Amino acid sequence: MRVTVDIVLFTLRPDGAATLEVLLVERGVPPYEGTWALPGGFVHPDESLETAARRELREETGVDDVYLEQLYSFGDPGRDPRGRVVTVAYYALVSPDRRPPEAGTDARAARFWPVAALPKLAFDHAAILEYGLGRLRTKLEWTGVGFELLPPKFTLSELQRLHEAILGRDLDKRNFRRWVAARDFVVPLKESRRTGRKPAQLFRFRGR
Amino acid sequence: MRVTVDIVLFTLRPDGAATLEVLLVERGVPPYEGTWALPGGFVHPDESLETAARRELREETGVDDVYLEQLYSFGDPGRDPRGRVVTVAYYALVSPDRRPPEAGTDARAARFWPVAALPKLAFDHAAILEYGLGRLRTKLEWTGVGFELLPPKFTLSELQRLHEAILGRDLDKRNFRRWVAARDFVVPLKESRRTGRKPAQLFRFRGR
Repeated sequence: MRVTVDIVLFTLRPDGAATLEVLLVERGVPPYEGTWALPGGFVHPDESLETAARRELREETGVDDVYLEQLYSFGDPGRDPRGRVVTVAYYALVSPDRRPPEAGTDARAARFWPVAALPKLAFDHAAILEYGLGRLRTKLEWTGVGFELLPPKFTLSELQRLHEAILGRDLDKRNFRRWVAARDFVVPLKESRRTGRKPAQLFRFRGR
Repeated sequence: MRVTVDIVLFTLRPDGAATLEVLLVERGVPPYEGTWALPGGFVHPDESLETAARRELREETGVDDVYLEQLYSFGDPGRDPRGRVVTVAYYALVSPDRRPPEAGTDARAARFWPVAALPKLAFDHAAILEYGLGRLRTKLEWTGVGFELLPPKFTLSELQRLHEAILGRDLDKRNFRRWVAARDFVVPLKESRRTGRKPAQLFRFRGR
């Protein structure tokens, strides 16, 4: 039996449009050569699972120094044409102002793809990505994830666009503001920013 | 690299004292022969991870037909003296009125141990068990887990004793009742049970 790691790494497109994106690589080797996939690869005998995930991410995409969290292990027989391979999936979020990815080792190309318009993915990576998206949405609901994805000071409209991007649907402005007010993860600042007709109050995430 | 599954299965002691227990087996084969461990074993080439977890649980302890949930994968080099072994841990809860476990295959004995008074455990199973306990406590906080552990109708005192058993500490009665009232996972019934001086109202879990 062989063990791999795969990484589901989300970001926002750095154009202010709040498009949720995921990091993919174009495979340069069989199986699925030329098909897009999550970055990842085999665990080396002497490294921990998380070390393997960080190494594969760095080697295949140039992305380094991110917060990683173990997501779930996928091990159905038949999920990999090379034989029995169990993969331990990791989840990561990176800031929209990160450097663009750079392909390396087994990856022919590395780029962010909008979650709403993905190419066909190798192996069972579509299911792994879907599981990662579920984790992101759950975290959003309970902890107001997003400090990795927004600037230190933001307006409630920016926060709402982030939530809409992650949930994949529009939210009612008044309901969203009520939802935020009932939680304590954002703190109002004594500052505002001119946006359109009137100034919008700025907020920060608590503890940041 | 080899892949195993291990199962962290919790229950309450069926004596009404709300003692949280975990299912352990005494290993009948090296390594760690004669030491207590979580039930588990190697994944067969043709079975899924969850199928392997159910099979090992049934073979080693006679416990069958439980709700299993994947917990976390542990894969540090050196965690197993046999070489590199990655284990996928599963989490389960069973009702206190289940049949007693029966040892089989690689297990010399199988029994429930109080979480507060565990023997020394093989491999990194103490860390896996601790992780499982963390999951149980998180679920308790968010979803009021426990319907597997209480009878269909219960008093708030019974619910409080369950929470105290899982959290491993005493709770203030008034704070606990306020906490329950602020959530919607229990429903008051138009029934009560005589306990001591005055009748205590009965509750059920919502949706059960």
